[in-house]
Amino acid sequence: MSDSAPTVAGSTGSSTGTVPDDALVVGVDYGTLSGRAVVVQVSDGTELGSATCEYRHAVLDRELPSGTMLPPEWALQVPADYVEVLKTAVPEAIRTAGVDPARVVGIATDFTACTVLPTDEDGTPLCELEEHQDDPHAYVKLWRHHAAGSQAARINDLAERRGESWLPRYGGAISSEWEFAKALQLLEEAPEIYAEMRYLVEAADWIVWQLCGEYVRNACTTGYKGIYQDGHYPSEEFLAALNPQFATFPQDKLDRPIKQLGEAAGTLTAQAAGWTGLPEGIAVAVGNVDAHVTAPAAQAVEAGQMVAIMGTSTCHVMNSDSLGEVPGMCGVVEGGIVPGLYGYEAGQSGVGDIFGWFVKHGVPPEYHQQAQERGISVHELLTELSGRQGIGEHGLVALDWHSGNRSVLVDHELSGMVVGQTLATRAEDTYRALLEATAFGTRTIVEAFQKSGVPVTEFVVAGGLLKNTLLMQIYADVTNLPLSTIVSEQGPALGSAIHAAVAAGAYPDIHAASAAMGRADKGVYQPIPENVQAYDALFAEYTALHDYFGRGANDVMHRLKAIRRERAGRSAQGEDGAGPVVPDPEPAAASDQAAPV
Amino acid sequence: MSDSAPTVAGSTGSSTGTVPDDALVVGVDYGTLSGRAVVVQVSDGTELGSATCEYRHAVLDRELPSGTMLPPEWALQVPADYVEVLKTAVPEAIRTAGVDPARVVGIATDFTACTVLPTDEDGTPLCELEEHQDDPHAYVKLWRHHAAGSQAARINDLAERRGESWLPRYGGAISSEWEFAKALQLLEEAPEIYAEMRYLVEAADWIVWQLCGEYVRNACTTGYKGIYQDGHYPSEEFLAALNPQFATFPQDKLDRPIKQLGEAAGTLTAQAAGWTGLPEGIAVAVGNVDAHVTAPAAQAVEAGQMVAIMGTSTCHVMNSDSLGEVPGMCGVVEGGIVPGLYGYEAGQSGVGDIFGWFVKHGVPPEYHQQAQERGISVHELLTELSGRQGIGEHGLVALDWHSGNRSVLVDHELSGMVVGQTLATRAEDTYRALLEATAFGTRTIVEAFQKSGVPVTEFVVAGGLLKNTLLMQIYADVTNLPLSTIVSEQGPALGSAIHAAVAAGAYPDIHAASAAMGRADKGVYQPIPENVQAYDALFAEYTALHDYFGRGANDVMHRLKAIRRERAGRSAQGEDGAGPVVPDPEPAAASDQAAPV
Repeated sequence: MSDSAPTVAGSTGSSTGTVPDDALVVGVDYGTLSGRAVVVQVSDGTELGSATCEYRHAVLDRELPSGTMLPPEWALQVPADYVEVLKTAVPEAIRTAGVDPARVVGIATDFTACTVLPTDEDGTPLCELEEHQDDPHAYVKLWRHHAAGSQAARINDLAERRGESWLPRYGGAISSEWEFAKALQLLEEAPEIYAEMRYLVEAADWIVWQLCGEYVRNACTTGYKGIYQDGHYPSEEFLAALNPQFATFPQDKLDRPIKQLGEAAGTLTAQAAGWTGLPEGIAVAVGNVDAHVTAPAAQAVEAGQMVAIMGTSTCHVMNSDSLGEVPGMCGVVEGGIVPGLYGYEAGQSGVGDIFGWFVKHGVPPEYHQQAQERGISVHELLTELSGRQGIGEHGLVALDWHSGNRSVLVDHELSGMVVGQTLATRAEDTYRALLEATAFGTRTIVEAFQKSGVPVTEFVVAGGLLKNTLLMQIYADVTNLPLSTIVSEQGPALGSAIHAAVAAGAYPDIHAASAAMGRADKGVYQPIPENVQAYDALFAEYTALHDYFGRGANDVMHRLKAIRRERAGRSAQGEDGAGPVVPDPEPAAASDQAAPV
Repeated sequence: MSDSAPTVAGSTGSSTGTVPDDALVVGVDYGTLSGRAVVVQVSDGTELGSATCEYRHAVLDRELPSGTMLPPEWALQVPADYVEVLKTAVPEAIRTAGVDPARVVGIATDFTACTVLPTDEDGTPLCELEEHQDDPHAYVKLWRHHAAGSQAARINDLAERRGESWLPRYGGAISSEWEFAKALQLLEEAPEIYAEMRYLVEAADWIVWQLCGEYVRNACTTGYKGIYQDGHYPSEEFLAALNPQFATFPQDKLDRPIKQLGEAAGTLTAQAAGWTGLPEGIAVAVGNVDAHVTAPAAQAVEAGQMVAIMGTSTCHVMNSDSLGEVPGMCGVVEGGIVPGLYGYEAGQSGVGDIFGWFVKHGVPPEYHQQAQERGISVHELLTELSGRQGIGEHGLVALDWHSGNRSVLVDHELSGMVVGQTLATRAEDTYRALLEATAFGTRTIVEAFQKSGVPVTEFVVAGGLLKNTLLMQIYADVTNLPLSTIVSEQGPALGSAIHAAVAAGAYPDIHAASAAMGRADKGVYQPIPENVQAYDALFAEYTALHDYFGRGANDVMHRLKAIRRERAGRSAQGEDGAGPVVPDPEPAAASDQAAPV
């Protein structure tokens, strides 16, 4: 039961060999606000029980537990909350499953990313040391910590000027959310913490370290968030040009063995067995990311199967045989989703968030009342009403950039737009236009892949939004792709469980485990030729506006945000005579994490 | 007491000579849905009493009283409803004023325009003849009858090709609402009615005909709506090229004496004295239009004073010493507002309509509830909330084209747009952006005048929207003009009363009568230099978007409307499989009539 000698499963997909037929695995999905454990049958992926544990400290975005105030755009977490999930949700999931924990042969985890923390040599988070409890930089920087923007800008500018070969692997720009931007911020704002930390660890790897006592980096976050390409990190010269103290950051703070997804990082320690109630010595898989780990749960790990985890935002992951440099993608990493294939990632910063915003802030009372009387949600009512329309009948086109644009423009200073409103425009019209705008955004991403020689042949949806059948048909019609949907309602946790089964040797690889344990309703939405044609006309309009507002012809969105920031700043300082202003915080930018709406 | 011998009033503005000091006049304002009579003191314009009469048939836009169905975009009225106003509202106004009707020395009227009807030789409307009760073309075509679009397009195309000298007097295009378009529709769709009618009469002149028994055309509608420029109508060659039967339309159906505003058309007949209870033989002024007649009521009849009648839509009227050809204006007519000056007209198709639409269809329940609890309107609540913001703090720019654009683009196929939305955008943000968008639209009109050598020096507001003090300050800041407001709440009726006083000889001209009887709060809103500067930046953004969407760079709005019509047509015919569609009528386009919101 180690990663060195996997036991090959039979071609039927049932487990054989050293792994018993009735073996179980546990998958744990670490989200932004809670962790969820699920107990799964190795033989067929049946989910037997699950449990959730909310993080006691949730997200620290105003102050530390000690009361120390945080600057704007900070978002921290407390690592002990992650361990609490192991102590409570895992045993509770076993209990609800009503199974003997001795049957569990492996455990795997997935995490938000890039979520990083500074630790000492043995993995103790610096924030757990008495002397650092008041140091914000000693805590976990959550994926949506957005205070490293200036560092990311410097990294991108320099990389572009120097023509760094890794830059196109990230669509032309790395995000301020990622490891090097956060590390540079840490170095420059808290050099003493930077000096003291032995490692800057992805939470995805840190939790595995807690389980098996081994610090192993995983190929997924190391590639997507850690700028590790073709066997190395950014060069010493490059890093030195950013900041001389940063020159040896990878050697000093990152360097550890990197293992492929599906491999075992080690085995469960006695201590972690005590926390979880699982048998000591079972396989612990290497870490993973919530979006990427979902692909095998949706039986979508072959080349050309694009998986969209659609929730508040959308994350797209897809394998391909070939390496292409797709403008505006988040990244391409060899083995980033499954070993042996190139894993691609792209994303839309706002999707369900935009629908939720509209329902909350743009729908008049009658709709709320009618929905309540009928016992349905306002989303359901608007979907029903807008589903009666012919394509284009509302006369609207919208841009889905209320949270900025991740792919393919990589520009968080963009904003939303809607054109075509008349006095006859109703809430269901705008709602449908917003649904369609996100579908057009997805098609833009799909076309960027196609044009870069990375074919997309199927669209597979996971995440909460797949319940909206109108939305699904719109996506099939707009992309002109057959659309499949995941069956599991806890895709990431099931995906982790699949990785646990591979790490435990129950299957030879993720492909085989996915085939046996994953489940998707294949091609349940087929593009309707007449609709495809009707949407082609609207997509042409979307694209013209996309390029006009997004590619520099008219930078009005940038200028409006600049004016807004300047104005809000002056109002906050009381310089305006117009009276007090209610603070109007920027919404959280999108994440790899896709919470259902 | 005839128009041939006006009695000059003293320089104090009080009435003298043959008109007694305590003389009264009656003004009657014919709107889209009702007529309002007001009794006014000649000496100082004091309003002593008023009364309103709603038209029994309102607007016929679905069927005739007989049940005959009307095509889409038709809008008719019943002329007897206008007479009913004379019979009920005038005596009621006298009654509420508590005055002796014998003191009344004159009556004047204003009307929506272009509102026309076919009559026989003695003015009997053809629709009142038994044999024509089922003929839609025998009725009054209301200003917002929009079924003559193709005729207007042919007139404009031909006039442009032939370089007709009158075309630039209408900003480069005449409207489908105007006399020649409606007449051509009548000729081509109902040649027998066209042949039978002796006159096609502006309702503004028809009601005067009913009062004094004389059919006199007024210089205002004849110029603005009847293409009468420099002493003649469009040429026979031009009209013949449109349709040979149309060649002699002016001689055949229009030709009558044209009198200047403020002149008497005649004196009150015994029959009309019987209807109104007013003395037989008093002066009856020539007809006028509701917007134009408001200028003297607001003491704004000098060159450079732009009067904006701001309600559901906005109509701008202004005098100038010089003749300029302003692109996109509605028209310039010598003596169109007062004799001796060039009267200019421009307009915005949607203003209060847009605010009303947003409040009804885009504001969530909490606001409605809060407004109700506080006993204020949702408009007032949103104004209060958005008034706390600094300029540009909402991060939005909108285009105010929900009802199309009258000036300066003259394009009803345009639509609304808003850019800059984020998940933090709230209802008050969009509301303020819409207020500002209409102010930017006004500034675009003001600048078109300035650039054409027609200076605008003061902005004078009449109409219901002047009650919104935030809106007024925004207009002053955006236009960088001092802003005055009319005092009377029934500007058009008071304006008519002023014309009645002039026609009765109480004043030498409209200027003198306006000075004595009109009232405005002068310069109550002054531009605030800091705000002017802040709005300059946003207006630059508005202008870039205005030109991009409105001047052909991206005709997306046209294409979306075309798709929408095509789709709605197919849905209505049941060709779409997507289920029934609730009819979604185009909103009424704007009119000269500005009802307060």
